[in-house]
Order: sequence, then structure tokens, then C-alpha cells
Amino acid sequence: MRALARAPVDVLLIDRCNHHTFQPLLYQVATAGLAAPSIAAPLRHILRQQRNVTVYLGDVQGVDALAHTVTVNEQRHGYDYLVLATGTTHAYFGHEQWAGHAPGLKTLEDAFVIRARILNAFEQAEMSVDEAARAAWLSFVVVGGGPTGVELAGTLAEIARHTLKQEFRHIEPARSRVRLIEAGPRVLPAFPPKLSAAAQRQLERLGVEVATGHAITEVSAEGVRVGGQSIAARTVLWAAGVAASPLGRLAGAQLDRVGRVQVAADLSVPAHPDIFIAGDLASIAGPHGPVPGIAPAAKQMGRHVARAIEARLAGRAASAFRYHHHGLLATVGRMAAVVDLGWLRLTGLVAWWFWLMAHIYFLIGFRNRLVVLIDWAAAYFTYERGARIIVRSDQRE
Amino acid sequence: MRALARAPVDVLLIDRCNHHTFQPLLYQVATAGLAAPSIAAPLRHILRQQRNVTVYLGDVQGVDALAHTVTVNEQRHGYDYLVLATGTTHAYFGHEQWAGHAPGLKTLEDAFVIRARILNAFEQAEMSVDEAARAAWLSFVVVGGGPTGVELAGTLAEIARHTLKQEFRHIEPARSRVRLIEAGPRVLPAFPPKLSAAAQRQLERLGVEVATGHAITEVSAEGVRVGGQSIAARTVLWAAGVAASPLGRLAGAQLDRVGRVQVAADLSVPAHPDIFIAGDLASIAGPHGPVPGIAPAAKQMGRHVARAIEARLAGRAASAFRYHHHGLLATVGRMAAVVDLGWLRLTGLVAWWFWLMAHIYFLIGFRNRLVVLIDWAAAYFTYERGARIIVRSDQRE
Repeated sequence: MRALARAPVDVLLIDRCNHHTFQPLLYQVATAGLAAPSIAAPLRHILRQQRNVTVYLGDVQGVDALAHTVTVNEQRHGYDYLVLATGTTHAYFGHEQWAGHAPGLKTLEDAFVIRARILNAFEQAEMSVDEAARAAWLSFVVVGGGPTGVELAGTLAEIARHTLKQEFRHIEPARSRVRLIEAGPRVLPAFPPKLSAAAQRQLERLGVEVATGHAITEVSAEGVRVGGQSIAARTVLWAAGVAASPLGRLAGAQLDRVGRVQVAADLSVPAHPDIFIAGDLASIAGPHGPVPGIAPAAKQMGRHVARAIEARLAGRAASAFRYHHHGLLATVGRMAAVVDLGWLRLTGLVAWWFWLMAHIYFLIGFRNRLVVLIDWAAAYFTYERGARIIVRSDQRE
Repeated sequence: MRALARAPVDVLLIDRCNHHTFQPLLYQVATAGLAAPSIAAPLRHILRQQRNVTVYLGDVQGVDALAHTVTVNEQRHGYDYLVLATGTTHAYFGHEQWAGHAPGLKTLEDAFVIRARILNAFEQAEMSVDEAARAAWLSFVVVGGGPTGVELAGTLAEIARHTLKQEFRHIEPARSRVRLIEAGPRVLPAFPPKLSAAAQRQLERLGVEVATGHAITEVSAEGVRVGGQSIAARTVLWAAGVAASPLGRLAGAQLDRVGRVQVAADLSVPAHPDIFIAGDLASIAGPHGPVPGIAPAAKQMGRHVARAIEARLAGRAASAFRYHHHGLLATVGRMAAVVDLGWLRLTGLVAWWFWLMAHIYFLIGFRNRLVVLIDWAAAYFTYERGARIIVRSDQRE
């Protein structure tokens, strides 16, 4: 987008949100650590200086790859080049009915729903009359041991043990059980086994019960079934599975198993060379296996697509996308994280500081950085979380 | 509540929200100036040190003044003394069907709805194809010239003229029309006429069209009818009318015209001396006319009720409530406000600074104060507003 600032093109940016969300910190909004505006920047404000960009707020209802048009808000817009960067969301492995019981975390709206579920669980526990009901409200299950699942589980344990201390009269929040359930053999599968093991140790030190090699077979309002055993839990959070945005299909492209678009070397769609795919929606091989669905990869793709379009306009062939892997970060919780830069691997406090600095640095907008720093400093010293509000519209099943 | 900290009582605090909202700054959340957590403090956190307080989250479904019980979340709780402080909300003068077209501002949820309406209006205008539709999206009507209406109208004008400058390609946000419609003879009727006039001048300087002496006769999705004339406006905000919480009626008390409870001198309900009323829900005469429905009065009542209960427990008669009026503040917009301390009256920049300091001072929690200061400083110098995000769940009609 911004890479096209000086290109001889008119850009129409279509987004269903009016803001860019800083995904890596979304879990902090979901766990009441940060206010939503701290990790969201209005698209118009980011792009206001870029005169060749028009921003439209809406859903893309259709793509006509032959007529070269996209339909948004019942209006058709022609294009010379179409860039799809609509990413992926979580998937319930064909059990869509689980969604209501186990919300996932991809948008700010999801974050508000999860925040309300978590905070409300303790409220309901406080008011419960019988022991079993109380225990079920104080039982939390996080499904999926990827970065999001690890972040949510670690933060949940911190909230139960520290943030809510002293605040209840009938329950002991520290007695809550937080379970992280991963179907694969280890948490953070994208990291080296050593770091996965370190992450699991750190989670357990925070009070999270980690169960690997267990697939969820059922999710209901009462809890989950895993390995033939039932776990009573009124709060189940979903951080497993990947499903690509349906726009890939709309574009008539060839999709991989989870619906990502199999792109050519220059990130264009083989059948429709005027359509480019950037970000998680693109399925492409990198030097060491497939390019991971992480923000740095998406940014590299965005820049490449801009260059590719400029090349095409200049009558040159677009070069092949080359992914540069800088590393992986994941935070586990308070003073706990893992960092894998390939040549450098960190765990614990050092990794946490590294994670902290990197995320502050990449947060858009000075004000946000400052406010986030203040919130984190306050949380660090007081364990209090600045965004502990439940708004009714978020309390839906 | 906190005034009962050292009283020999057990306190059950029942609230439908898990947080205390700093009402005077609610309009800033509604106009995307502040993030919700900046003006909300979790009740449990505020009261965590007060061991004789239990907090329950829920709606009071019933009050049985004879059996001395309240019902919340299907559970009955007995009481020796009941304090009702459920306040008032906006009223549509019997036209409840207007509510969907003209949201009012009493809760954070309301603020999110209004924020989404305002921001979305400019988005829709940008995408509108015909001139009339565009003009209707850029036409804003605020109904009611009290403090909230004045704040909303003034801030709307600032957003249109400054915040959104440069950000659109097909519209000129500064061309928006912001109308403030007041049925009475002047805005801020609770202030001296001189200050009302000053407030109106300041509003007009900010670009607001003020119409006094005009009552709204119809509100629809297309706009409003006032004085036999139709005004096309896709965004109508409601800041008029007062309706007391229905709990007064539940308590079987005698109500005034708008449903407030007519209380005895000690703020108890004549028919049920064990029930006290505090805040906007109480209707009582002060030295100069009825006690106004403002935060300082509510706080004084809260303290008085605590003293009254302590007196009753000690077998003494409760003293009569005496209201001390310290003054009225209202902000009009950027560097514009009015202050009436009786002995001192301020307008313009001075009044604005006075307003700013007073509100920062009364904001609960150091962190909030700091973050609010940063947001305001940023807004002051850049005109940018830190909370410009639309979340889908808020976009309901």
C-alpha cells in the first residue's frame, strides 16, 4: 500500500474495518491489559498524506476476475491490478457449532467478546451457590498451543493468580484452573523443540496445566471432551486451526488444504496474473519450507507486490518473491517468552525484554507506544490491568 | 459506599456494570477522544481493600420493601437497609421508537454506538454516489442543549473541521452541518443567561448551528422534523429528556413527574424508612430550588446516606440532607467552556482550563489521569483523536 506511494497508480483500499489492528498485541486487549485504541490506528489517518489512495469501508461481496471488477457495498469497481490480503482466521475443523462456545481471536470484536467472557466468569463464580458451578466458572480451557494459545493461557494464569487477588469474597481466583490443550506433540510447534520445552516449563511455572497430544472431540456450553475425558469449563477459548479468507475462492484461484491461494513465484494468481495475493492468504514455498503466516512475511509480500506492479507497468516481468526469515517471537506471560532468531535463541526474562522492545517498536504511532508503555509499566508493578471493563454488547454466547 | 468502610455493616453492592464510569467524560469516548478504559475503573478494584463489601454483577429484578429483600440474578438477598442509586437515563417523551434512530449517551455501550455512528457517517458519505445522500450523511443533529448536547455538538464540529481534514477524497468533512436543537429558550438552561449566551457564541464559532425554542416533532432514519420543517440527517444524537430508573417504582415509593423518588429530608423513602435514595434518582429540594442531577450532589447524598445509616444503627435519628452547591461546569469544545461558581463566572479559554483541571483531578486512578492527559495533549496539538475505531458489534440501528 504505502510502497505504491510514488507509483503512477490510483489505489482503492477496501477494508471491512476502519482501522489497522496490531495483531501481535490483540491478546492483550482480550485479556484486559490494553485498551483497543492502543493497538488500532485509523487507516485514513495512516494514509492521509498519500494522495493516490482512496479508502472504502466495506465487505467485498464479489470478485469478477474476467471483467476485472470487485463489488463492495453493492458498487462495482474496475481494476487493472487486484491485491488480495484478506488473511486467514481460526477454524473449527468442520465443527462450526463450537464457535459460540469457544470464541477465537482475530479481530478487536473477538477480543472484546473474550475479555467479557473471562471477566464475567469470575463474576459468575463469585455469585455461584453450589461448588460444582463455581468450579466450572473457575475452569478455563485454551485450545491450541500456538503463539495465541500460549499468550492467552499464560495471561489467564496471571490474571487469576495476581490481578484479581483480594477482589472477591466467596472465591479464591488463584484456585482457578487454566488448561492449555494442544493436539500436536508440543506447544509452539513452529519453534525448535528446545524452545517449545522452555515455553511449556514457563507456562507451568505460571500455573498453566499443559496437555499436548490431545485433540478436542467436543465443545459445549459445559466444557470440552478431550481423549474420551470430559472437562467442565464455562470458558473455552479457541486458538487452533487456520482457515483462509473466502476471497481466494471468489477470485477463482487454486487453493491449498486450508483455502490459501497457491500463488506463482511473483505472488500473482497463475490463472489471473493481474491478481496478486499478499500475507497469510498466500501459500508459497520459502527457502526452508512454506513461508510462515506472520506479520514480517506479510509486510515483505506487500512490498514485493508493489514492486511487481511497478515492474508490470514499466513493461518488465515481475521478479520472484524471496522471503527473508528474521526469526520468531512468542510471549508466554509475565517475564517469560521465547525468541528464535536462528543464530540466537533466548528464553525467560531476556526473551521477554526482547519481545517487549520489538513490539513497542513496531506499534504504529508514537502516542500508542507511549500509552502502551505506561499501561505495561503500571501492570508490571501493580499487576492491575487497565482495561477491565465488560460492555454488555460483548456478552453474547 | 466507601463512607461505610468503618461502619459495623456488611455491604452488598449490586451493579449491572463491573466498572464505575466517569460520566462527565463519557462524551469523549463517544466522540473517539478517549478509550473506554481511561474513564472506567473496575468496582472490585476500587473496593478491594474494603473487606465489608461484596460486589455482585447483575440486574435487580425486584425489590420487596415489605419482606426486605432484593432479587438479583434470580437470587433473593435480605437487607436491613437498601440504598438505591440507579440514577436516571434520557427520555424520548413517549416516542420510544425514536431511540433506534437517535441514540442517547448514558453508558459506555451508548458511547460505542454513538462513536460508530459518527465515524461511519463520514465513511458512508465518502462512498455515496449522489449529492443528496452525501449531504444527509454529512448532516448531524444533536437534540437537547444541556451539557451533553453542547459537548457532543461542539466536538462533532471539531472532528468535521479539524480531525478528519485531508483524510477523504470525495468529500470535504469541513462542509458537514452540525445542528444543536434545544426546545427551551437557551442552551445550558441550568446556567445564568449570560453564560448560556456565551456558550452559544462559542458553539457558533466552532461551526455549530444552534436553534433554540424548537421542539423535535419526529425522528426517523432520514432525519428529524422540527417546527414543521424537515431536516435530512443520517446521524441524530439524543441528549434531551430525563427518565428515572424504574427501581424507584419497584420500591413502591412516591415518584415525581419524571419518575424520581420523592424522598424525606434524610433521603429515605417516607413509606419505607429503611430504603434510602442517593444520586439523580432522588427528588429533593435544595436551598435554591431542587438539588441538580450532577455528580457532586450524588456524592454528597452518598456520604449523607452512610451517615444516616450509622445514626440509625446507633439508635439516633438521621439528620436532614443539606446540599452544598459548588458550581456548574460545561465544556463547549476546543478551548471553550463555561464555569459558574456563583461568586465566579468564567467563559472561553480560562473556563476551559478550569474544566480540564477539575476533570483530570476527579478522574479515578493515577494511570487513567496520565493516559487521559497524554491523549488530550496529543489531540490538542495534532487534532487527532486516539480512539477512532469502529467495532462491528456497535454498528446497530
